[in-house]
Amino acid sequence: MTTTASRGPRTAPHSGRADQVRRALAAVLPEGALVTAAASVERYSHDEAEWAPYEPALAVARPRTSEQVQAVVRVCLEHGVPVVPRGAGTGLSGGANATADSVVVSFEAMDAILAVDPLERYAVVQPGVVNDRLRAVVAEQGLWYPPDPASSPWSTIGGNVATNAGGVCCVKYGVTGDYVLALQVVTGTGELVRVGRRTAKGVAGYDLAALLVGSEGTLGLVTEITVRLRPARPPEQTVVGFFSSLVAAGEAVTAVTRSGVTPSALELLDRHCLRAVDDWKHLGLEANAAAILLARVDAPGAAGDLEADVLRDCFTAAGATWAARSEDPDEADALFAARRLAYPALERLGPVLTEDVCVPIVAVPAMLATIEEVAARHDVLIANIAHAGDGNLHPLLVTPPGDDGARRRAQDAFAEIIAAALAAGGTVTGEHGVGLLKRNGLLAELDPAVVAMHQALRRALDPAGILNPGKVVA
Amino acid sequence: MTTTASRGPRTAPHSGRADQVRRALAAVLPEGALVTAAASVERYSHDEAEWAPYEPALAVARPRTSEQVQAVVRVCLEHGVPVVPRGAGTGLSGGANATADSVVVSFEAMDAILAVDPLERYAVVQPGVVNDRLRAVVAEQGLWYPPDPASSPWSTIGGNVATNAGGVCCVKYGVTGDYVLALQVVTGTGELVRVGRRTAKGVAGYDLAALLVGSEGTLGLVTEITVRLRPARPPEQTVVGFFSSLVAAGEAVTAVTRSGVTPSALELLDRHCLRAVDDWKHLGLEANAAAILLARVDAPGAAGDLEADVLRDCFTAAGATWAARSEDPDEADALFAARRLAYPALERLGPVLTEDVCVPIVAVPAMLATIEEVAARHDVLIANIAHAGDGNLHPLLVTPPGDDGARRRAQDAFAEIIAAALAAGGTVTGEHGVGLLKRNGLLAELDPAVVAMHQALRRALDPAGILNPGKVVA
Repeated sequence: MTTTASRGPRTAPHSGRADQVRRALAAVLPEGALVTAAASVERYSHDEAEWAPYEPALAVARPRTSEQVQAVVRVCLEHGVPVVPRGAGTGLSGGANATADSVVVSFEAMDAILAVDPLERYAVVQPGVVNDRLRAVVAEQGLWYPPDPASSPWSTIGGNVATNAGGVCCVKYGVTGDYVLALQVVTGTGELVRVGRRTAKGVAGYDLAALLVGSEGTLGLVTEITVRLRPARPPEQTVVGFFSSLVAAGEAVTAVTRSGVTPSALELLDRHCLRAVDDWKHLGLEANAAAILLARVDAPGAAGDLEADVLRDCFTAAGATWAARSEDPDEADALFAARRLAYPALERLGPVLTEDVCVPIVAVPAMLATIEEVAARHDVLIANIAHAGDGNLHPLLVTPPGDDGARRRAQDAFAEIIAAALAAGGTVTGEHGVGLLKRNGLLAELDPAVVAMHQALRRALDPAGILNPGKVVA
Repeated sequence: MTTTASRGPRTAPHSGRADQVRRALAAVLPEGALVTAAASVERYSHDEAEWAPYEPALAVARPRTSEQVQAVVRVCLEHGVPVVPRGAGTGLSGGANATADSVVVSFEAMDAILAVDPLERYAVVQPGVVNDRLRAVVAEQGLWYPPDPASSPWSTIGGNVATNAGGVCCVKYGVTGDYVLALQVVTGTGELVRVGRRTAKGVAGYDLAALLVGSEGTLGLVTEITVRLRPARPPEQTVVGFFSSLVAAGEAVTAVTRSGVTPSALELLDRHCLRAVDDWKHLGLEANAAAILLARVDAPGAAGDLEADVLRDCFTAAGATWAARSEDPDEADALFAARRLAYPALERLGPVLTEDVCVPIVAVPAMLATIEEVAARHDVLIANIAHAGDGNLHPLLVTPPGDDGARRRAQDAFAEIIAAALAAGGTVTGEHGVGLLKRNGLLAELDPAVVAMHQALRRALDPAGILNPGKVVA
């Protein structure tokens, strides 16, 4: 794969071959569905991963139907040109980053909710449907689509499927893949097929839908998704704890897990995040604590009260300076909004390199201590947000704009955190995906024979090697 | 694949090549771990699928370690001999049936529970661990392994993984695959690898564990399984409904789904099943109704009472002749025991061909009516048990021993039920797997391009074609 040494635009090649591909794409796409203007192409050619290399694609296709996606893939097959699928571009690993010889397929114009079935409890959506919109539409019918990545106001179901996105309520309700029943897919050989099922159960053949979820567009382009829904759940209660150290907050997390209560959210924010959000949004957040834990429970009635009390007691026993059930829903919402806004708030301070390690729950306190130690030793500002109840930590490495020394120190710290997570029995990516930034991490995590299995599967489903080449595994 | 025309033993070949393979296996296995005596080999060469063809294998390996499994696979690779993995042999599709040139790998000697981690909530087991034993061991630590196929007193976790087995509590808690975190696997190229993870989340690479679950031994031999556990749940309450027709019971099932309550069990048994169990076990079951529904709910405290009342009201509204919350735990246990014993009880009457279609919930009443119509038209006794809340029906086609005409009529009825399930938007197998009996059904269900993807994946992971050939897809 050809990549630029650093994040930034480069002129796309205007060879005769590129023009040929553009003409062939124009012939299969409707008016306005092909983007070739340099400034627009640039915008579509990368995601939000800091310092992940990219080049402007040779064109951007914005198909409106599955058949148009298929036609684009067939053009690319014919010309031997890579295809880079793209949702909303909120990815944090470079999975949607283009190369100069590639065609980006943006699914933003495929944003229809095709069906919501309240009895069988599924919805059928095009990949460009924004997560929060699906959640709102099904809520009107008393249904709930649980996966709720922090990007849910912007990110799409197609992108969520490509990365197997997680979110806040995973700790009790699982990740995107747990809700994918069926997919319509354009394969690497240009076929348009359906995999999976709409029934509650089914084992007719291999679980191809599960294989495609999280494959980051390297095994097929998803053109339609059938997601499983749940009935709406009882209102949640919020429990908040303030801690004088990150490690104490980590110890409260292991205490919660030990208690046997499964919270419906268990999030950690440190003081850097709280301050950055408050400086931006003026939510009136108290940022005196080193870290806060935000927990929610959703058991019905008295059982929920009991669960909330157990969490509060866990927080107190772990040394919280203050812990209580939140009686003020506005306050609780403001704290969860702060959680969601932490990433964009920190980005206002400078480029943010986002970690996504996931470790065993018992390792959370030690891992948080390691992150503090790494930050101090490399002189890097590392803010911490975490889906703490899952052991999924997001150290956010913030560097002053244009400071190359800080960038290099941040990249060294990034690599050390990955190594520490692996040493603790963890994984290099809990929910953001491998993309470009975690390719070395993947090689460190997986047995070479397992990497070879990845390559064999990829060759089997994408014999021409055109599906998002260079991502996940080479 | 060479198969006999009907179920029954045939003499295994005693060619020089077979002897060579046996000698090579003996050299890599410990004393007593190689079975070659004809009577024993015969017993290991098939599962419980009625009329699925098999031949006695050329040998049965009973390895005690993952490394011995690897050594067996390497011998088979070297000699180009098929490997047929086997759990307890309770399968109902012929997935564990041998051919004369194959080596059966029985996992019965690999039955250790290697770890139970109550904090991270997982257990690590060898494939030969019996489902009920795992459930009992983790229960001692306040944990719960939900998947509970009717075969749970006998079937093994390895077999459950191979078929992605379901069970009674799937309707609320999902199937085996929802609980598989990681696998150790011997690959088709003879490597011993680990796939998956032990952390709560993780997206480092393709979900190979999900691909292997339900692949019936055709993509790798599973030698160790890490399963996710849940905290023990509150006690269940049972609601029983008696119905004067199968279709009315089916209508009660759709009413329950419409109510928004998710039961922790929703099982259907018809009068044939109740009578067969009572004739055998004398449980004192009333079999006057055409069908009964057995439902359970497990919401805590008052919420559970409310759920139970909703179910009872659904039953009544759908025309139950009697519906009530069971106040007698012994009675409730007897009814669920009858559910579990229905299959062996019917087998006492003659060969039982087991269906496993799964249809949308809304289609359950019509599908039950179709089954009755098919039974009458083909003059076949069809008893019905069903994981009704999942739409997963198990029509059991019972034929008098030795009655070839009845067998042919049953096979015709079997094919018609499959066709009707597909026409209703269902699948040919909800939880038993494809094995041999559903290979034609699979071809009817899946797009030819999807079948080609299966074949490509199989070639990618089993280039020598030695892993359970002839099963799932040719």
